[in-house]
Amino acid sequence: MATHLAIAFKAVGAELVQIWSRDIRNGEILAALTKSTAVSDWNKLDRNADCYLIAVKDDAIPAVAERLKGLKGIVVHTSGATAMDALAQTGTGYGVLYPLQTFSKTKAVDLTKVPLCIEASDPATFEKLSAIAHLISPLVSLVNSEQRKVLHLAAVFACNFSNHLYALSHTILEHYQLKFELLKPLILETAEKVQTSLPEEVQTGPAIRNDEETMKKHMALLREFPEMQEIYEMLSKSIKKKYL
Amino acid sequence: MATHLAIAFKAVGAELVQIWSRDIRNGEILAALTKSTAVSDWNKLDRNADCYLIAVKDDAIPAVAERLKGLKGIVVHTSGATAMDALAQTGTGYGVLYPLQTFSKTKAVDLTKVPLCIEASDPATFEKLSAIAHLISPLVSLVNSEQRKVLHLAAVFACNFSNHLYALSHTILEHYQLKFELLKPLILETAEKVQTSLPEEVQTGPAIRNDEETMKKHMALLREFPEMQEIYEMLSKSIKKKYL
Repeated sequence: MATHLAIAFKAVGAELVQIWSRDIRNGEILAALTKSTAVSDWNKLDRNADCYLIAVKDDAIPAVAERLKGLKGIVVHTSGATAMDALAQTGTGYGVLYPLQTFSKTKAVDLTKVPLCIEASDPATFEKLSAIAHLISPLVSLVNSEQRKVLHLAAVFACNFSNHLYALSHTILEHYQLKFELLKPLILETAEKVQTSLPEEVQTGPAIRNDEETMKKHMALLREFPEMQEIYEMLSKSIKKKYL
Repeated sequence: MATHLAIAFKAVGAELVQIWSRDIRNGEILAALTKSTAVSDWNKLDRNADCYLIAVKDDAIPAVAERLKGLKGIVVHTSGATAMDALAQTGTGYGVLYPLQTFSKTKAVDLTKVPLCIEASDPATFEKLSAIAHLISPLVSLVNSEQRKVLHLAAVFACNFSNHLYALSHTILEHYQLKFELLKPLILETAEKVQTSLPEEVQTGPAIRNDEETMKKHMALLREFPEMQEIYEMLSKSIKKKYL
């Protein structure tokens, strides 16, 4: 998250005053990429920046906020699952900038296509944060802490769980000496379809057709994977309940 | 399936002798699109074509094959879940051409990026079918009936079930007055990631981090959806079992 945001802000000409990192070596890598300066000592933190962006593990946010008290600039975290008020102790304007996207170290992401969910402690902070967010994406929405938690939950279903289903399909293919490669266009098309249609409009497969014979054959192919049989049955049941 | 295949073959200059359809009006629409002729009377079937491509519901394949006995051309079905031998009764060269993709009536698919799984009753038929398949896609693989069934099963996990998870996330968002729109970039990125990485390498989310607190919050948000709670628990358990 820190890497992707820092690179996106640098790309639009924002000045990255400092990169703070617990591990100075990690900080230095990102600082080199963004022509910034790495620090890991809290005493060396520049206290005159306009905005302090926190991109750390959720449970480390309170400890970092503890160090960011009494600043002039606004303090902002980037977590989907953490309430904005985790930053209330900073005693200054605070908020959240949550990019609704999945980031990996090895793959660049075009942030201009990523929805940014923002929330702020007061109208003045909201104005500042909104301007900062608009620097890197036009898709900026006001989303409160409760809604952000719901978005994060929905993303677990649509993204984390879908990826796990890809992994399960890989396990099945491997077991029968088939290549995952063959499924890739299908996976991409499935995701592309719901960019223009609702998922309910494009559901296919044996469950929605109530094709018992195919489902029985599939269960037999999964006989060595009882856990996948359970998942197959539960999701098929859920599809049948929704549509039939 | 019939529509997408007919259009793809027409686009590469293949001659579509006839479009047979139970309902002549459906046949006429596709015949108009592909400069072909529609028929619905079996007696009017042209018996001199090189290849008869069957794109009907799985359970209708035997009845259609019954009508395609004693032809000179090869007879080919396009089903993922049906064994090749469903065509043995035709008494001529037969096979399967199974495009591993999901088709919808309203969205064009670039077949040149779709893996075509083919299988044939004998080497001469295989040569003919392979040449026909290569007309519309370079991604032609020999896949036998057992492997095709496995691919179809893997596609149910990676495609049908993923789409259902998108639908469930839509339900959650709607319940909390949030737009499905916000999730679309995330869904696309999740599918794009596994084009270059294996899904096991890019799994994220609370389950793989064993983030019990977030999972508890999510279960609470799902309190009005006991079925989704079950799915959430089962898939989280499966992720934890795989990685932790």
